[in-house]
Amino acid sequence: MADTKLQIIPLGGLGEFGMNCLAVRWQNDILVIDAGLMFPESELLGVDIVVPDITYLVENKEHVRGIILTHGHEDHIGGLPWILSELNVPVYGTEFTLAYVEGKLDEHKMLDDTELIEIAPGAKFSLGPFTVEPIRVTHSLVDCVALAIETPVGVIVHTGDFKIDLSPPDGKAFDLHKFAEYGKRGVLALLQDSTNVDRPGYTPSEWSVKPRLDEVFSRTKKKLFFSCFSSSIYRIRIALDLAHFHGRKVAVVGRSMVESSEIAQDLGYLDLPPGLLIHPGQINDFAPENMMILISGTQGEPMSALSRAAVDNHKHAHILPGDTVVLSSRVIPGNEKSIYRVIDHLYRRDAHVIYDDGASGLIHVSGHASQEEQRLMINLLKPKFFIPVHGDYRHLKKHAELAQSIGVVDQALVIEDGDVLELDRESAQKKGKVTAGRICIDSGSTADVVEDIVIRDRRHLSEDGFVLPILTINKLSGKVERQPELVTRGFVAESGLLESARQVVASTLENSSAEEKADYGVIKEKIRVDLKRYIQKNTSRRPLIMPVILEI
Amino acid sequence: MADTKLQIIPLGGLGEFGMNCLAVRWQNDILVIDAGLMFPESELLGVDIVVPDITYLVENKEHVRGIILTHGHEDHIGGLPWILSELNVPVYGTEFTLAYVEGKLDEHKMLDDTELIEIAPGAKFSLGPFTVEPIRVTHSLVDCVALAIETPVGVIVHTGDFKIDLSPPDGKAFDLHKFAEYGKRGVLALLQDSTNVDRPGYTPSEWSVKPRLDEVFSRTKKKLFFSCFSSSIYRIRIALDLAHFHGRKVAVVGRSMVESSEIAQDLGYLDLPPGLLIHPGQINDFAPENMMILISGTQGEPMSALSRAAVDNHKHAHILPGDTVVLSSRVIPGNEKSIYRVIDHLYRRDAHVIYDDGASGLIHVSGHASQEEQRLMINLLKPKFFIPVHGDYRHLKKHAELAQSIGVVDQALVIEDGDVLELDRESAQKKGKVTAGRICIDSGSTADVVEDIVIRDRRHLSEDGFVLPILTINKLSGKVERQPELVTRGFVAESGLLESARQVVASTLENSSAEEKADYGVIKEKIRVDLKRYIQKNTSRRPLIMPVILEI
Repeated sequence: MADTKLQIIPLGGLGEFGMNCLAVRWQNDILVIDAGLMFPESELLGVDIVVPDITYLVENKEHVRGIILTHGHEDHIGGLPWILSELNVPVYGTEFTLAYVEGKLDEHKMLDDTELIEIAPGAKFSLGPFTVEPIRVTHSLVDCVALAIETPVGVIVHTGDFKIDLSPPDGKAFDLHKFAEYGKRGVLALLQDSTNVDRPGYTPSEWSVKPRLDEVFSRTKKKLFFSCFSSSIYRIRIALDLAHFHGRKVAVVGRSMVESSEIAQDLGYLDLPPGLLIHPGQINDFAPENMMILISGTQGEPMSALSRAAVDNHKHAHILPGDTVVLSSRVIPGNEKSIYRVIDHLYRRDAHVIYDDGASGLIHVSGHASQEEQRLMINLLKPKFFIPVHGDYRHLKKHAELAQSIGVVDQALVIEDGDVLELDRESAQKKGKVTAGRICIDSGSTADVVEDIVIRDRRHLSEDGFVLPILTINKLSGKVERQPELVTRGFVAESGLLESARQVVASTLENSSAEEKADYGVIKEKIRVDLKRYIQKNTSRRPLIMPVILEI
Repeated sequence: MADTKLQIIPLGGLGEFGMNCLAVRWQNDILVIDAGLMFPESELLGVDIVVPDITYLVENKEHVRGIILTHGHEDHIGGLPWILSELNVPVYGTEFTLAYVEGKLDEHKMLDDTELIEIAPGAKFSLGPFTVEPIRVTHSLVDCVALAIETPVGVIVHTGDFKIDLSPPDGKAFDLHKFAEYGKRGVLALLQDSTNVDRPGYTPSEWSVKPRLDEVFSRTKKKLFFSCFSSSIYRIRIALDLAHFHGRKVAVVGRSMVESSEIAQDLGYLDLPPGLLIHPGQINDFAPENMMILISGTQGEPMSALSRAAVDNHKHAHILPGDTVVLSSRVIPGNEKSIYRVIDHLYRRDAHVIYDDGASGLIHVSGHASQEEQRLMINLLKPKFFIPVHGDYRHLKKHAELAQSIGVVDQALVIEDGDVLELDRESAQKKGKVTAGRICIDSGSTADVVEDIVIRDRRHLSEDGFVLPILTINKLSGKVERQPELVTRGFVAESGLLESARQVVASTLENSSAEEKADYGVIKEKIRVDLKRYIQKNTSRRPLIMPVILEI
């Protein structure tokens, strides 16, 4: 019966934060919403980025009509180079989103081979049997949209990432009327951002950081360093306005900050008075009280401009006693150590550091809807079915409970990556699974997929290092030619242990038949097991043990 | 002039959280306050615990009169086995603190060789030229003390960890009067806990979690699982009281929870109605609405009872749909991933999970003084000098600023691990440094120190694995006997790369003179450098490369 059903198939972002990617299918037409990446957990050793497994899309290559992007954050666009290399389909996005995408594809030398199609709020377009209308939403980034998708069984709405900011700094308002209109006409299903389902109330407007920042600007007697996420165009705009108002010139420092502010300027999101920006090389030409430095690196990234400035290792950005450093951002879980290390360095330089310590006034606000905004959206759209997206399992579950409790929604359904949800005008049901998962990428010169086994090996190596027994066996006689060698790194052994471990290997060899010794697989495994037992008993450690046989 | 000066020498905990240890010296007498450990940051691969470098104490062994413990948390007592193995001196602590210490020393088979001396609030004792009075303070653990130490140049007060809890569940009140008395008589220096210097206001009392917990107990229709830090005796007491009040039997599950609640019971901190506790094997004999399970594992520790129960892998603790799980604890930074993984599993089992989501009512309170309590203590003691302890650099600095701003203190001084602060009745000055630092320990059968080089190797291995070129050289002829072998693990290589890497090694050998080949050090380094360059150029990765030469 799948022929008369609409299928919703999340491939990433439902069951984790990041790598958002979701397929919508009607018969032989598939539309993909977002193509994000995820930054790896620290236990994924040596992995640079994580992207969704798109086996399902590759297997259905000829049916995929395009990828529609809701906005330009990495967890929505960062997987594009990887996905497009497997699947060359048109990419749809708003002007600002595509500007980010262009930079990214250019870096991967894929720009010329990709069809980029600009979309705009209110301008409907067709993709196979689907008619898509982008609807303007507000978020921490500019030019973000939700998607209303007309399908043969009804309209589904995907919110993208959003909050309801009633006073966005660029005046481009959240389109309440359009959502109300769709709600009036009837919505089959709403797929809504779950990120902040833990937070009661409303998320404050982007503007709400201004009073505290204004106070910081007023009090600062020397240089002011301002750091935020480079994609936080609103925040940058507020900082630049304040700099101008308080008579400070601005130098932009750090690659991502320079790129992002140039794009924002080109597209009219930053309206700068002439002469406000100066080159970082001119910082010393101005009195400290007349300088603001817009600098990247809020998460303590080791090579970022701020991390380097914090240890006085940046060409232009020198932080001196009495300077003020503002971190207008949140602490992303997992980055605490590196962020606080930078902050400690700043304190050692006798700088004033203003960061989100959870106690003083607001210097950062979230870009995601809190509970009341989630409820408001559900009330506006009155969907028959509700499907939470973007979050760990507990967020999806809580969000479904929240939606169900309002009494507007017929049914709230928790689905996860790989689940196939089938919808028609009357019903919604989970029907089977497709391949889904995480692909780990070592971003070297070429994008290399890191297999699970490699990561397991690295984890093993990272805990106890390795011990390699090396044997030389005479190819002709089958005899062991010399005492086994033990090579080790990253493993702590008391003196004498390695010598006796060699004896263990030697005695394993002695106690093995000629037949066993001739079968390298068997003899390697015997040595591995005996040596492992011996080392574990004597040190309680479990180094990676990998016997090597050299034939001579 | 050091002869007439008192020296304060922090060896741990000033510049980091954890491994608290501080020496106080007058001429040839040294007294040590606390002997803590620190749990390693994730980048210290394979390291189990971190303890302070006590070279200074070992070098002055004959002068050390004893170690005084302020309370029984790991960051104050956890380093004892390590320190006592280098330095066998008497250990002073309150009854409850010593009960924890006994368990720890017993585990390390050191109990019989250690002199443990019980101290009590208000009971002064002498140690060389020092007279020490323990003063009762409140904290998240019971039986905690601050120390007032009379020295030849005046009284110094060390707060230990504290908050000012005006209604501690055991009724043993924070001794405001004693502090006031010392303040009146005059205090030379105050060493005060900086942990919560970021928080304005007062830290709520331990009691303040009761209303929300009571509500949870009232609403829960099925089994109730209650988890908290096993040392949070007050919290356990409140949970047991509520269980009794709401007609639930209690089973205690998890080693640390069992041990800790037994100690608390023995020492009279838990007053249990007969029949309240049942054996975990009896859980199924009671209706779900009549059971509470006190379970350890709030931090998502992989082998903890709660983690195992979350994946239904615990013998007695089975979590069923509709059961409620309360995590009455905070999320320690760095543990987010493992904690939320457990919570997600609990949601998948359709349990109600009550955790500190920052939004709903209070289910956990801190054990450390907030700013107003810190100010109150300074006002009570009116110290001439103020020295912040326990915190990263930024906490110490902020705490010094807070103290200075009150106008009571003559001088606030920021010192860090290894600094020597010299005091007399009139002045306080930093004078030089002693050896201080962190010792990484692999807690196997024996306590093995992990050298920096081993950790560096592990980190290197963890990122890109290893490549080992193995050569066989004929001892007699000096000739290379066969094609070099390449052994690799944890390293991603495209097909063909390893073969061409072998060629690189072979050609390095060809281009080396007989003399170079005879010097294994030289030829190994040549191979390492050439191979490293080749691999880096072709893969952008940097595996650990370690040439091995076998003589045959």
